[in-house]
Amino acid sequence: MAQAVSCPGATVETGSKVFRISAQLEAGQSLEVCVFASLYKETDPDWADPIREAENARNAGFDRLLQEHRSAWKKLWDQVLVRIYGDEAADLALRYSMYLLLISTPFHTDKVAVPGRGLSGQVYKGAMFWDTELYMLPMYLAGLPQTARNLVRYRVNTLDGARAKAQEYGYRGAFYPWESQEDGRDSCTEYNLTDIFTGRPLRTYFRDKQIHISADVAYGIWEYFRWTGDESILLDGGAEVLLECARFLYSWSYFKNEKNRYELLDVTGADEYHERVNNDFYTNYMAKKALQAMDFAISWLSERHPQALEELLDRLDFRTDLPAILDLKEKLYVAAPDPDTGLIEQYDGHFRMEDITPEELTRRIIMPNEYLGSPVGLAVQTQVIKQADVCLITALFPGDFSPQVRRANYQYYEPRTEHGSSLSSCIYALSAVKCGLPQLAKAYFMQAATLDLKGAYKRFVGDLYIGGTHPAANGGSWMVAVRGFGGLSLEQDGIHVQPILPEDWTGIEYPLSYLGNRFRIYAGKDHITATAAPDNCRAASLFLGEECRQLSPGEQVTVRYQEVLS
Amino acid sequence: MAQAVSCPGATVETGSKVFRISAQLEAGQSLEVCVFASLYKETDPDWADPIREAENARNAGFDRLLQEHRSAWKKLWDQVLVRIYGDEAADLALRYSMYLLLISTPFHTDKVAVPGRGLSGQVYKGAMFWDTELYMLPMYLAGLPQTARNLVRYRVNTLDGARAKAQEYGYRGAFYPWESQEDGRDSCTEYNLTDIFTGRPLRTYFRDKQIHISADVAYGIWEYFRWTGDESILLDGGAEVLLECARFLYSWSYFKNEKNRYELLDVTGADEYHERVNNDFYTNYMAKKALQAMDFAISWLSERHPQALEELLDRLDFRTDLPAILDLKEKLYVAAPDPDTGLIEQYDGHFRMEDITPEELTRRIIMPNEYLGSPVGLAVQTQVIKQADVCLITALFPGDFSPQVRRANYQYYEPRTEHGSSLSSCIYALSAVKCGLPQLAKAYFMQAATLDLKGAYKRFVGDLYIGGTHPAANGGSWMVAVRGFGGLSLEQDGIHVQPILPEDWTGIEYPLSYLGNRFRIYAGKDHITATAAPDNCRAASLFLGEECRQLSPGEQVTVRYQEVLS
Repeated sequence: MAQAVSCPGATVETGSKVFRISAQLEAGQSLEVCVFASLYKETDPDWADPIREAENARNAGFDRLLQEHRSAWKKLWDQVLVRIYGDEAADLALRYSMYLLLISTPFHTDKVAVPGRGLSGQVYKGAMFWDTELYMLPMYLAGLPQTARNLVRYRVNTLDGARAKAQEYGYRGAFYPWESQEDGRDSCTEYNLTDIFTGRPLRTYFRDKQIHISADVAYGIWEYFRWTGDESILLDGGAEVLLECARFLYSWSYFKNEKNRYELLDVTGADEYHERVNNDFYTNYMAKKALQAMDFAISWLSERHPQALEELLDRLDFRTDLPAILDLKEKLYVAAPDPDTGLIEQYDGHFRMEDITPEELTRRIIMPNEYLGSPVGLAVQTQVIKQADVCLITALFPGDFSPQVRRANYQYYEPRTEHGSSLSSCIYALSAVKCGLPQLAKAYFMQAATLDLKGAYKRFVGDLYIGGTHPAANGGSWMVAVRGFGGLSLEQDGIHVQPILPEDWTGIEYPLSYLGNRFRIYAGKDHITATAAPDNCRAASLFLGEECRQLSPGEQVTVRYQEVLS
Repeated sequence: MAQAVSCPGATVETGSKVFRISAQLEAGQSLEVCVFASLYKETDPDWADPIREAENARNAGFDRLLQEHRSAWKKLWDQVLVRIYGDEAADLALRYSMYLLLISTPFHTDKVAVPGRGLSGQVYKGAMFWDTELYMLPMYLAGLPQTARNLVRYRVNTLDGARAKAQEYGYRGAFYPWESQEDGRDSCTEYNLTDIFTGRPLRTYFRDKQIHISADVAYGIWEYFRWTGDESILLDGGAEVLLECARFLYSWSYFKNEKNRYELLDVTGADEYHERVNNDFYTNYMAKKALQAMDFAISWLSERHPQALEELLDRLDFRTDLPAILDLKEKLYVAAPDPDTGLIEQYDGHFRMEDITPEELTRRIIMPNEYLGSPVGLAVQTQVIKQADVCLITALFPGDFSPQVRRANYQYYEPRTEHGSSLSSCIYALSAVKCGLPQLAKAYFMQAATLDLKGAYKRFVGDLYIGGTHPAANGGSWMVAVRGFGGLSLEQDGIHVQPILPEDWTGIEYPLSYLGNRFRIYAGKDHITATAAPDNCRAASLFLGEECRQLSPGEQVTVRYQEVLS
């Protein structure tokens, strides 16, 4: 509904979708119109009464609404804002990046997640991707754990869709969609692209073969539980998702007798240029994490909620599967670093592919916007990759690899990456931080954080226009800032803060939410200050640099530290 | 060396590669020149002395040589000739077909087999294919068992090449080449074709994924043994090949716990348009045959030559593999006919491919000679196949399937076959015979038998010219005539003759060699006459129609029979 507020005699006719505003204006006179709208969709909790909401808004009036709006944003920023000191450009870029992510965030519902191209890109039909779990969830966990819960619950709510997809392909358990709709359907088509040479649709396997998404979903649930300690997520469908994802991975797996190991065959990993490969490192690694998460969840429930566990195992008819799935957890093959070079092969046979640089590849392009990936794109038979796959793992789980291995793989894969995905630069930034290369990291970070600000991204693939913003890059930039430079991690023994700042940054400040307690961390060049929120429910230990400090509610501690380049 | 025979005073200068012939000719006088050449290659047994051979030829002179030539051909035709009565065109076509196969035959050596495109096609570099075992061996077994032995021994001689190929791809055992050179190397490249839209090489998987060739090789050895009873082939390297082929198949296989079965994944079957499929029916079926052959061979040796077996098992370090391979033999998945429709799916998911006819497919062609197969040819995402895969099995092993299943699969696959291979029409002919459709079979038979006579075959694939004759179609035509219409088969209880003649054929006559005995079979519309060679070493039983008859050396028996359309 609309209201003409500054022009006596003006009339407003409200139709179903159109306003007609009539007014006689004298010279110099101005007309101010306020439109009060309420925007709902049927999955929203209060969607049945949008009219009343709009009426309430009109009754409150513009000034009141503006005040509420500002106060809501202030409250939001108070919870999530990250400040970078000493580098205004970086500070601005990150804030804009976070702003784009926040405006795409479903704070109010667990029926949707964050759409892959934000609010403005249509190519992905508003669908949700694994980007949510891998690239965005960390920000919500640190500042908005209730929203993180919504995002995780979205996967619980769409479990039946994932089950249906598994069944469609002849598997059991839950095969989460690449392009997830609100009901858990996969809206990805089998012909995602067009061959620009022949005009024919190209059979791609985004939908069929990215089994890592089920592992990512399980990982997301487990991360939520680890950071929040909120066991209700397990009881409230999360454990069921973990079991069904594990069952799907088992159902996909094959056992190689000769090598006494399970393998995951015919998959597409994070690097989408190489489809239908065997034992993709990212996939197998995440699958193992997912299987461990299932195992942990079962142990947890068995100790604390045995009856709920029994009911779940019965309901899912899981008892015969369980020993086999635990066997898979033990014997699932995950490629080890080469003992001499430290290199991890991205998938079976990757190192036998033609070894050229992305620049050489580019010189072979005949048609602008040629798609470089499977089935016959220029990258397919080469070692040129679209985005991090091995380095995504070494960046996310640096503690699982020696510094030498992290660095060897960064140095090998980074020059062979074409960055054909907006998910790429943030991960190379994070990876570079974890290799102790903060200047390289900074360059990649700025690329990621300014992606939507500058609009410097790929707009076409073949003849397909891909618009929209890049929530994964937005969330990824946060990860680089906080989990990378800011040095925040959750290890087995608790929260660690081990910053590695770029030369020109004097400090970084960010919120931390952990097991229901809130903190604010400031990491400078030579000291770390942690402040516990006054309303924290209990004291908590944090590892600041090398020191472990106990923080009572409201307490602030500062430790000096020696920056460690790992 | 050359000899001018009819012109006194003419001189012949013989250079290393050139003859210079000088003569003064009067008007009306003619000059006759005889060139005596001997053709050897270094793999031939007597290659060291080609000069002396040529001298011997000169000394014998033209007339004597011509006489020897004619007598050699007569002797050859006496052993192999098949006569078709009542249909001169068919008789001529088959004889020409056999002639082409015979002139490409290495009678004298086991160091080469029959090249895939005969003596005149260069595209396959003179290489040998699985065509030898599957399409040609039957003719040699029936008429020239010693030559059959050469062909089988060729695989023994190239075992090391097959072992090297297995190792190259990370497997154990023997992975026989798609395009086999004399040393057992695979001369097939990874980029067998060019994309005519982009001019770029196309990555194809003829070389990497046609694992059925090792099964075919094993099958060939076993067929040789079954028809000849010549156990020396086992002792003379054949058993070793059987073991190594079985080991390779085991090494390729994966176990699917959920289904308690082994599977063969990521293979290309007989239908080359669909590369990299799972559980290709032809492949899995032949693999099971190969594993059974290994098992039979081990039992045979264990009973008759235990020491040779022990030595072999030790030398190949086979004792730990054996139980696992026998497990594979039992639990290897081979798709069963659908209980309702009788249909067998060519590979996992084939029936989900787009179901169009080859004619509809052809209408989608943009460029002449477009390659229709993998990776992105028009046939790949459809059910249109290049050549028989399921029907190759039902045609070769009709006794393993009910008449309903044979016919259901013929009727399903035949209209969906594009016949892009010269190996196709003969198998659909054979398949039609085994479905009791002799008129359809006749049409396909004539297509196969006249292929080289009429030259009505595909000459280009993309921009690649494929010339040469078609030994597989030649041998395949023989198979249709003798094993199809002539009704010859070797069952568990011995040789059967159960003819099904096309309407216009009055009879067919063919040689039969079995366990060292020779026979001539005449099958007419209402009677079968079998004649045992006078020099047969012992009496033998043959099933003629429904009757089992004992034939002493030199004996001839005739039985009346009622033609059975199965």
